[in-house]
Amino acid sequence: MSKIQIFNEKSIPNIPWEDRPDNCQDVMWRYSKNPVIPRDLIPNYSNSIFNSAVISREGQFAGVFRCDDKTRKMVLHRGFSKNGIQWELDPDPIQFKCKDEEIGNFVYGYDPRVVWIEDRYYVTWCNYYHGPTIGVGYTHDFQTFHQLENAFIPYNRNGVLFPRKINGLYGIMSRPSDNAHTPFGDIFYSQSPDMCYWGKHRFMMGPVGNSWQYTKIGAGPIPIETSEGWLLIYHGVLTSCNGYVYSAGVALLDLEQPWKVIARAKPYILSPQTLY
Amino acid sequence: MSKIQIFNEKSIPNIPWEDRPDNCQDVMWRYSKNPVIPRDLIPNYSNSIFNSAVISREGQFAGVFRCDDKTRKMVLHRGFSKNGIQWELDPDPIQFKCKDEEIGNFVYGYDPRVVWIEDRYYVTWCNYYHGPTIGVGYTHDFQTFHQLENAFIPYNRNGVLFPRKINGLYGIMSRPSDNAHTPFGDIFYSQSPDMCYWGKHRFMMGPVGNSWQYTKIGAGPIPIETSEGWLLIYHGVLTSCNGYVYSAGVALLDLEQPWKVIARAKPYILSPQTLY
Amino acid sequence: MSKIQIFNEKSIPNIPWEDRPDNCQDVMWRYSKNPVIPRDLIPNYSNSIFNSAVISREGQFAGVFRCDDKTRKMVLHRGFSKNGIQWELDPDPIQFKCKDEEIGNFVYGYDPRVVWIEDRYYVTWCNYYHGPTIGVGYTHDFQTFHQLENAFIPYNRNGVLFPRKINGLYGIMSRPSDNAHTPFGDIFYSQSPDMCYWGKHRFMMGPVGNSWQYTKIGAGPIPIETSEGWLLIYHGVLTSCNGYVYSAGVALLDLEQPWKVIARAKPYILSPQTLY
Amino acid sequence: MSKIQIFNEKSIPNIPWEDRPDNCQDVMWRYSKNPVIPRDLIPNYSNSIFNSAVISREGQFAGVFRCDDKTRKMVLHRGFSKNGIQWELDPDPIQFKCKDEEIGNFVYGYDPRVVWIEDRYYVTWCNYYHGPTIGVGYTHDFQTFHQLENAFIPYNRNGVLFPRKINGLYGIMSRPSDNAHTPFGDIFYSQSPDMCYWGKHRFMMGPVGNSWQYTKIGAGPIPIETSEGWLLIYHGVLTSCNGYVYSAGVALLDLEQPWKVIARAKPYILSPQTLY
Amino acid sequence: MSKIQIFNEKSIPNIPWEDRPDNCQDVMWRYSKNPVIPRDLIPNYSNSIFNSAVISREGQFAGVFRCDDKTRKMVLHRGFSKNGIQWELDPDPIQFKCKDEEIGNFVYGYDPRVVWIEDRYYVTWCNYYHGPTIGVGYTHDFQTFHQLENAFIPYNRNGVLFPRKINGLYGIMSRPSDNAHTPFGDIFYSQSPDMCYWGKHRFMMGPVGNSWQYTKIGAGPIPIETSEGWLLIYHGVLTSCNGYVYSAGVALLDLEQPWKVIARAKPYILSPQTLY
Amino acid sequence: MSKIQIFNEKSIPNIPWEDRPDNCQDVMWRYSKNPVIPRDLIPNYSNSIFNSAVISREGQFAGVFRCDDKTRKMVLHRGFSKNGIQWELDPDPIQFKCKDEEIGNFVYGYDPRVVWIEDRYYVTWCNYYHGPTIGVGYTHDFQTFHQLENAFIPYNRNGVLFPRKINGLYGIMSRPSDNAHTPFGDIFYSQSPDMCYWGKHRFMMGPVGNSWQYTKIGAGPIPIETSEGWLLIYHGVLTSCNGYVYSAGVALLDLEQPWKVIARAKPYILSPQTLY
Repeated sequence: MSKIQIFNEKSIPNIPWEDRPDNCQDVMWRYSKNPVIPRDLIPNYSNSIFNSAVISREGQFAGVFRCDDKTRKMVLHRGFSKNGIQWELDPDPIQFKCKDEEIGNFVYGYDPRVVWIEDRYYVTWCNYYHGPTIGVGYTHDFQTFHQLENAFIPYNRNGVLFPRKINGLYGIMSRPSDNAHTPFGDIFYSQSPDMCYWGKHRFMMGPVGNSWQYTKIGAGPIPIETSEGWLLIYHGVLTSCNGYVYSAGVALLDLEQPWKVIARAKPYILSPQTLY
Repeated sequence: MSKIQIFNEKSIPNIPWEDRPDNCQDVMWRYSKNPVIPRDLIPNYSNSIFNSAVISREGQFAGVFRCDDKTRKMVLHRGFSKNGIQWELDPDPIQFKCKDEEIGNFVYGYDPRVVWIEDRYYVTWCNYYHGPTIGVGYTHDFQTFHQLENAFIPYNRNGVLFPRKINGLYGIMSRPSDNAHTPFGDIFYSQSPDMCYWGKHRFMMGPVGNSWQYTKIGAGPIPIETSEGWLLIYHGVLTSCNGYVYSAGVALLDLEQPWKVIARAKPYILSPQTLY
Repeated sequence: MSKIQIFNEKSIPNIPWEDRPDNCQDVMWRYSKNPVIPRDLIPNYSNSIFNSAVISREGQFAGVFRCDDKTRKMVLHRGFSKNGIQWELDPDPIQFKCKDEEIGNFVYGYDPRVVWIEDRYYVTWCNYYHGPTIGVGYTHDFQTFHQLENAFIPYNRNGVLFPRKINGLYGIMSRPSDNAHTPFGDIFYSQSPDMCYWGKHRFMMGPVGNSWQYTKIGAGPIPIETSEGWLLIYHGVLTSCNGYVYSAGVALLDLEQPWKVIARAKPYILSPQTLY
Repeated sequence: MSKIQIFNEKSIPNIPWEDRPDNCQDVMWRYSKNPVIPRDLIPNYSNSIFNSAVISREGQFAGVFRCDDKTRKMVLHRGFSKNGIQWELDPDPIQFKCKDEEIGNFVYGYDPRVVWIEDRYYVTWCNYYHGPTIGVGYTHDFQTFHQLENAFIPYNRNGVLFPRKINGLYGIMSRPSDNAHTPFGDIFYSQSPDMCYWGKHRFMMGPVGNSWQYTKIGAGPIPIETSEGWLLIYHGVLTSCNGYVYSAGVALLDLEQPWKVIARAKPYILSPQTLY
Repeated sequence: MSKIQIFNEKSIPNIPWEDRPDNCQDVMWRYSKNPVIPRDLIPNYSNSIFNSAVISREGQFAGVFRCDDKTRKMVLHRGFSKNGIQWELDPDPIQFKCKDEEIGNFVYGYDPRVVWIEDRYYVTWCNYYHGPTIGVGYTHDFQTFHQLENAFIPYNRNGVLFPRKINGLYGIMSRPSDNAHTPFGDIFYSQSPDMCYWGKHRFMMGPVGNSWQYTKIGAGPIPIETSEGWLLIYHGVLTSCNGYVYSAGVALLDLEQPWKVIARAKPYILSPQTLY
Repeated sequence: MSKIQIFNEKSIPNIPWEDRPDNCQDVMWRYSKNPVIPRDLIPNYSNSIFNSAVISREGQFAGVFRCDDKTRKMVLHRGFSKNGIQWELDPDPIQFKCKDEEIGNFVYGYDPRVVWIEDRYYVTWCNYYHGPTIGVGYTHDFQTFHQLENAFIPYNRNGVLFPRKINGLYGIMSRPSDNAHTPFGDIFYSQSPDMCYWGKHRFMMGPVGNSWQYTKIGAGPIPIETSEGWLLIYHGVLTSCNGYVYSAGVALLDLEQPWKVIARAKPYILSPQTLY
């Protein structure tokens, strides 16, 4: 185990860290002072703030946050933090610049991810364009954000880019959906030479019966490149008699053909057991 | 009216034609000897044959047909006819040649369309790949058929190509779907430089309330280029208390930006009123 | 049996009549030359014409017809006939005059009924006003039609007036609904002093399990007053594995308290067995 | 802002009041000692007590309360309080006196509202009569309660009277429904000369897409008459993947034509964020 | 093929037979004078008669028929025929004698099967007892019918006995269901020493994806014992956009362990293609 | 009341007991130190542990527990306790020995019950065998567990044995289901001479409208034999707008014909009001 190497990693000395509690044998554990981001961090405005996408930059932290305002409209806000714990969020939503007026007409967006590829930070999110689909944008400086073409036709959610080109092509995971609380969902892998046109779609993996992930699954944060393959943290859903229950799990993907699953842990690594 | 010109038309002297019956004022009318293709044209094999895609070629006719066999599996068969009325169908399904084994693994396919673009006949169909999506292939001679990458991630149906590049890009219509008898559906327009990667997805049009097309719509045959715009024949669905009812309607699309609808007829031009 | 008397009946010597066929023991039987009204009676316009409401007037016949045009919009047309078999329909829909602009804004309407009460012909129909509800209007001459207030809040269908005031109040049957292909439905009786405000709503009867009327029921034509009670012909629906199946049945209602059901035949009197 | 005047207001010196907390900028805020009414206020009987309708009377407070007993049957109880905080509830449900036996047969009832109009306290509630509808009653003294005719045919909920006649007619809001957890719902306004017959139904307002009120809405407490219009507090519902989420919002209605909405706040003013 | 032997067969010289039409290559073909049983064979009573269970007896034919009367109640009638084509049906439903009053209380029943085992004719049917389940009865003479205990708890349908004990135990197939138009369904095999208590339930086979039998399947007539195994004719259902479509298929079951499927034909052998 | 006698009771001096709190008038009350079994009692393994089946044995306690592991697979674990409060659970699931390989193939199981009958402890549980059904096993010593045939065909849940033969037959309650979160459910009683074959199924009782048990009901722990009848504690479900709500109620069953309900309390005796 100790020989596994994380590729392309950047040292982040000030990353918030809390050791595993005694008596805890879990692979992943909760921060004892959760929640990090209170729901009302933007006063008189935010109903809830979550599904954050945070990166380390210039010794500090920056991120894009899903913020539901008090109309329950979902929008994206940028935020900054020196230590990853105390955050300041821009009270104004991100205004993407877009060459095409129809695409740039922001209706609502949520569940952002941020990743550095080559020379800039790419942002993807679930973007409403006659249905939920995958919005794509970028920023160099977290000041100005540019919006590109949507990666897919609706209906799609959970679009997550890989942090480098693979075989000369950008790679993205997504979960094709319907237009509501979709009761099915697989992860697919798609490829693009230019971040505009996407193709060579490949099935990656689907739900697992009789388990925490039997209804649907979707990619989580940006995959981590290791010597053994891409480490993917993803979410799975089961349908209880009171609705959906979300948990998180892990899988290992082939480095060059990431839609090929090398290994997939059967247990979840995080599940909802605590009330905040 | 008489000044409308059909572009790129090819004279087909032997196209089957029947004049409009007396007393009929409809825009479109039924062939009096329907059905052209009997359901058992492939003996001891076919349950039903329909949704044909026919082109004129070398003074005769060729086509790709949706054939449901007696397991009710949907497959594609090629067929040939001298007069467009009497048809011979190859009793063996089309075997596409495909460079990628996973994509070339034909599970089932239906609702083909055929169109000549530049130097070959392109075939699109609803292709099952972990869900219905849009399969793409081509043939030069109706002997050998080649399969390309699927145009989209599932779930999608009714993929229809435009008969020429527009602004240097191939154009396709499709109807994003869910994984069953989808109760919604708009037509979108997508673009590709190379028939492999697709993007610049644009909403074209959606259902119309209180009408024959209130549940969903989808493109029909290849659009016809005219001096006034692309003439699109499409289908619409209403949900009766006995299920879906399909009718056909027409719209006129902008020549250079085909997702912009210039005009759309409110009445249907064909609806199910006759039992065969 | 022979002592039963129909009240308030008007002699209609020219009413179309066809004797019961030999070998037929049914209470009601089909006209051998059905359909009386062909679906395309209004040329180049009508998709279907049905659920007619016909009365005898000045030795001839007049009626209000549900007509679905070729956009499948449902509207109401008046029609006239000398013999009740050959009909001429006004190709233009009825334009109701209404004092209130918001109520008079006709979106769509269907399933009309016509009844003479006191000094005029009242028309009721399923009228769309932010949902289906019961529209009410009247005419003196089948030339000019006036629209009154809707009888109910949505969602309601199958509004049928009684042909005279009962205990000094107008009486109407209706079937409260939801906003789609409602899978439930009882008949209620409501009362009004002035055809504007309605109240004193009473439950009349509901579906019957394990029968042709297990899903929902609704009033049919205007009830017939007899010495034994009001004779009500109504429809019932069962849900087959291919959707709704409609049949017609009969009940006998108390003359003074019509929501009290004196008798109700278990078998249907007409069911769908013939294809036109 | 300061010029807005509340009409017809009655001074209630002992109304419970708690100033807005520091750091809180909300329009409405929670009482710090919630819940006011514990679920077991009627010992060995009540499962939960809520959706109360409280008025000030003779320097004290009285109210009608929805109480679910331990069979989970919903009934109405009266209660009294000197300070609006400590309440005594009559352990016996209200027994309405009704002239009509069928209407007076109380099956279950919930979500009461109480309002003084002219000379008495009117009570409305969701009353089961072959489906949920709007029950109407009154009391002069909170000792004897009289039941009138139901205002509407089923299926209806959230019936809320206006505190005075408008243009000589009583006014009521309601939300037409289906017979279960209705997934749609608009507010309508209806009018009556006599609290018995209702008509002149007008659409007031409906849900708002992509917001806390996208599934359905319904009126809340009695509207407050101000110089700017009727101030309406109402509830809205969104459908999460775990069911319905209820929030409260505000709108301003025209004084003489209350179905005309002058203004409607986009954000909610209260949403479920605390567990009691 | 010619070496396959039917076991336990009884010569029935007068069985109705019609040779396969020229041009027909199907395994099974339609009788040219269908329908054999007209829907109104019991005058003024039957809405439809079908799903018959017919046996040869004393050189003639007898059977139990599902008859829906004009209330659409489903009951069982016995019938007799000399040639298998002209039938006389007892106009009165079968009255089963039953030792237990609660079980003998016939609510409704349908889809009967009849089979000779050892010394009597057993009848099974879908019997309503707080839900559909499998009723069991017998007759020696088609005059008196005795009812036994239901084979299963609800909800179950399509109970079909094997014509002899296997390994000393009676064998029955059934299709566990829900309480409506069940959208799933496998065939199970159950065993009994005494026709009263049943157990040792074994899964036999289920639906097949992308085929005429993808929604559910259920046993058809009594299996035919051959030297190669039990020949089972069964039905399968696909869900079209207009509801369920039923077809018939065949399978071959192990003689001693009939839940083990030796072979199963992929195509159907009969499907709905003709309107009667 | 004091004359009611519990039959066949065994003195359990060390049974955990806590007196009813002051101010509490409930029939049943919560243990003040709930939860007895923490969700993570099996470290690094259990997601949740509940629906336990505990018996007193040799002065101590033993039980079978539903344990959901971190894949959310449901399995059964045995556990032991000296005082009924502190428990040790075997970290390995119970491995049943079964003569039939197909039946013994444990897919998943949950909601166990344990009861001593005659000479051994019988265990029943919801056992997946091509759908949920009732698994049956036994143990003499809580060391070795034997699995018998499933009591029923799928789909069934909540199988609960009676603690002695009644009229010479084993008795079991169960709740026939569908294959998901079944929205209906009655309790039936079935009988067996040998724990292998089951029959003589009788309807016991069903849901009650407008109450905590209107959606479905199912048996709880082993019934308690008293001089007045079998005391049954069972659960009922109502469907809120956020899903199912489970409560517990009581009924009294006839001693010799347990499907006959002597009495049934209208209120629940326990409902979800506390968060653990």
